[in-house]
Amino acid sequence: MSEFDQYNTNQIVEDDKNHFLHPWQYFDSFKEEGALPIAKAEGAYIYDTDGNKMLDAIGGMWCTNIGLGREDMVEAIADQVRQMAYANPMVDMTNIPAGQLAKKLAELAPGDLNHVFLSCGGSTAVDTAFRLIHFYQNCRGLHDKKHIIARKEAYHGSTYAAMSIGGKKADHVKEFDYITDTIHHISTPYYYRAPEGLSEEEYTDTLIKEFEDKIEELGGAGKVAAFFAEPIMGSGGVIVPPKGYIQRMWETCKANDILYVSDEVVTAFGRVGHWFASEDVFAIQPDIITSAKGLTSGYQPLGATIFSDGIWDVIAASGKGRYFAHGFTYSGHPVACRAALKNIEIIEDEKILEHVREVGPYFQQELEKLVDLPIVGEVRGKNFMICIENVANKQTKELFAEELDIGRWITDEAAKRGVLVRPIGHLNVLSPPIILTKEQVDHIVSTLRESIEAVMLDLEKQGLWSDLSKSA
Amino acid sequence: MSEFDQYNTNQIVEDDKNHFLHPWQYFDSFKEEGALPIAKAEGAYIYDTDGNKMLDAIGGMWCTNIGLGREDMVEAIADQVRQMAYANPMVDMTNIPAGQLAKKLAELAPGDLNHVFLSCGGSTAVDTAFRLIHFYQNCRGLHDKKHIIARKEAYHGSTYAAMSIGGKKADHVKEFDYITDTIHHISTPYYYRAPEGLSEEEYTDTLIKEFEDKIEELGGAGKVAAFFAEPIMGSGGVIVPPKGYIQRMWETCKANDILYVSDEVVTAFGRVGHWFASEDVFAIQPDIITSAKGLTSGYQPLGATIFSDGIWDVIAASGKGRYFAHGFTYSGHPVACRAALKNIEIIEDEKILEHVREVGPYFQQELEKLVDLPIVGEVRGKNFMICIENVANKQTKELFAEELDIGRWITDEAAKRGVLVRPIGHLNVLSPPIILTKEQVDHIVSTLRESIEAVMLDLEKQGLWSDLSKSA
Repeated sequence: MSEFDQYNTNQIVEDDKNHFLHPWQYFDSFKEEGALPIAKAEGAYIYDTDGNKMLDAIGGMWCTNIGLGREDMVEAIADQVRQMAYANPMVDMTNIPAGQLAKKLAELAPGDLNHVFLSCGGSTAVDTAFRLIHFYQNCRGLHDKKHIIARKEAYHGSTYAAMSIGGKKADHVKEFDYITDTIHHISTPYYYRAPEGLSEEEYTDTLIKEFEDKIEELGGAGKVAAFFAEPIMGSGGVIVPPKGYIQRMWETCKANDILYVSDEVVTAFGRVGHWFASEDVFAIQPDIITSAKGLTSGYQPLGATIFSDGIWDVIAASGKGRYFAHGFTYSGHPVACRAALKNIEIIEDEKILEHVREVGPYFQQELEKLVDLPIVGEVRGKNFMICIENVANKQTKELFAEELDIGRWITDEAAKRGVLVRPIGHLNVLSPPIILTKEQVDHIVSTLRESIEAVMLDLEKQGLWSDLSKSA
Repeated sequence: MSEFDQYNTNQIVEDDKNHFLHPWQYFDSFKEEGALPIAKAEGAYIYDTDGNKMLDAIGGMWCTNIGLGREDMVEAIADQVRQMAYANPMVDMTNIPAGQLAKKLAELAPGDLNHVFLSCGGSTAVDTAFRLIHFYQNCRGLHDKKHIIARKEAYHGSTYAAMSIGGKKADHVKEFDYITDTIHHISTPYYYRAPEGLSEEEYTDTLIKEFEDKIEELGGAGKVAAFFAEPIMGSGGVIVPPKGYIQRMWETCKANDILYVSDEVVTAFGRVGHWFASEDVFAIQPDIITSAKGLTSGYQPLGATIFSDGIWDVIAASGKGRYFAHGFTYSGHPVACRAALKNIEIIEDEKILEHVREVGPYFQQELEKLVDLPIVGEVRGKNFMICIENVANKQTKELFAEELDIGRWITDEAAKRGVLVRPIGHLNVLSPPIILTKEQVDHIVSTLRESIEAVMLDLEKQGLWSDLSKSA
């Protein structure tokens, strides 16, 4: 008898297929295949209902930072549910974990980012930032300062506003509508595919110029409210910006009285080795940081919008009779906040940031070795946030035909070998739990190498690709 | 030694005040007073950090339906966290509780509402409905059929889109912005303040006419995508619609190919005695139901957007290569879904709907007796969803001056006596846990009577009001 005998996988898949509309569900293939049901999780490993064990190098979805199944997390969550599972956070009532977490986040966040609005995930953290920006500019009497600038290929969440701020072409499908009158997108800072012959600095120059031109085009600084950017783009393809980009974009914002929103839903809480990347990696102090995912390591749904004293002083100015007519029943949910506090305590006590700064570079360096493979164009990222860009031709950077779905193909090969990596178009993305050991790193890297080699062999066999490096 | 000695209330309040921006925070008064921190919850009772016990007749915020502190909920949640706290729900992976919950909701929801999108609360459930409507109409090629009609004084959540669908004047503050080009508001079906001399039926006639006129004004049925309505308005003042209103609005939608979205975030899961109110109370079958709150009784953040086979058949049509580019990291969070499943099981096993249908009418009937008080204009609602409308003059229905904050005044008097009721302007709203006993009902009602009498006495003493019924 195995613990998995209790599950009737067919029934589970059938029920799920018939009733649960999944995020990003592909209607055609889902009808055939349904979903893979996960029954158990332990550290960096997950098990499906048939007991198949997989190393989850996707980390849930950039989120299971400290690893799953921890008994101390179980205890903290259970204790809070038993003690006080819910209290109304509206207006003038609160609960202990919510206030403590807000205080802790203010301590961990850079500079004067001392105020925290809590919601249930990254999308509502971004939606709240969007509304907070309206509130702030209207309080200042700057009713025309409302345009938002963000980037193509950025992902910022899935509410109507958040999805409109995002600029991923693959997400802006024709079946959905978007806010297009006040939200604008400029280039992805994608050096690998920058025009030939530009140095990183020269490329950054062109990007800054584009930003300045866009501000001008929209009517100047008086019309532009805020700029949204992930420090390192996540699902847009782990785009590490070129040298000086983040700092100079931030300086341009400062010079134009434009709020800088740093979307750290992916990068915060250890993924790149720090509580937040904005200051510690890129030496900027944003006006607003949005956060979620690693904040609870996925154990509970939680999002945070952390903002500056500067914004606070304007919106909370005394004697104006103002109230913040925004919020959610589950803003500051005590169980989610308690989970976040425990998660942060674990990261501190077990020196997990230090661990990331040691093993993360090893993960990155070992994965970078895959670039010797003839279809790996680039390996980029930072620490436990890495992307492999697959190409048909390394010289021209030409892509494989879209219908080959090369990322998915490699993912499927890796899954057969017990390692889950995420396909995004022609990319494979890795964002494992940040507690990974060097042995687990080695296992992921060798599995990926085998998987890519297997795909290359198949491609050649099927006459879909030939290794030009061999014939040369 | 009391269990509450461990709390340093001053410090807790100070930390919370300095860092946690609360939903609907009044900046001026909050700076002085801060928030009341709740430390413990047990059934229908909550305790602050000083150990003061209160009967929470607000039910958290329309949500702690089965009561808090239940050991079976603790166990279900702890077990799920231990077993599998998170798995990626994107595209083609799932977890057991999410699929099971979707199936269960499809069973409980009326008619052919067999498809469920899961998020973390009512706001995202509504935002998802809004986006789903775009998706549906675009799939049909009806790109101009996009106008949304909702009602004044309705509350539908706090994302940018959800807050724009809502029509509460007090929430549409000048500091925030709203979608105004495609979202429109028609009258609240507020019979208590309907024009003099109209029967309920005649009043309904005028409301249906207004709806038809609005459709016409927007360019006819070809331009209107959906109508959003709570069956009984919640924070808009527990507005029980006049006879025939819901059914006739629904019929008007059917006749004009307009989707009917029934926002049951408040009314579902037992508050008015049924799983959902749409069919069981109002005999309609909406195209979409949004739900949250009672779905987990507040133990976990969760929202659901439940929609029809009719919508599904259009959006999921085979061979179109479509995917649903929408979703949240925490869509179908296994811990939240497990909590919902346990909550539903408890409601079933302990026959809580039957309990509501027995004790709810008693609650309503006993509260209705307060209408003999000279400042109680109306007591309305259904079962455990009740509103007391306070007026300065029962004949003219004239309100007290806004600055008296009469609802808050009564709430404060009741709180002194250990019962929490919610103030909304001149109203007091009650939405207690639905497991209330008749003894608890009696306690709430007698406490409210005392509190209102105390306020009347103060009003008279201060020369702010006089009881005309006495002088008459």
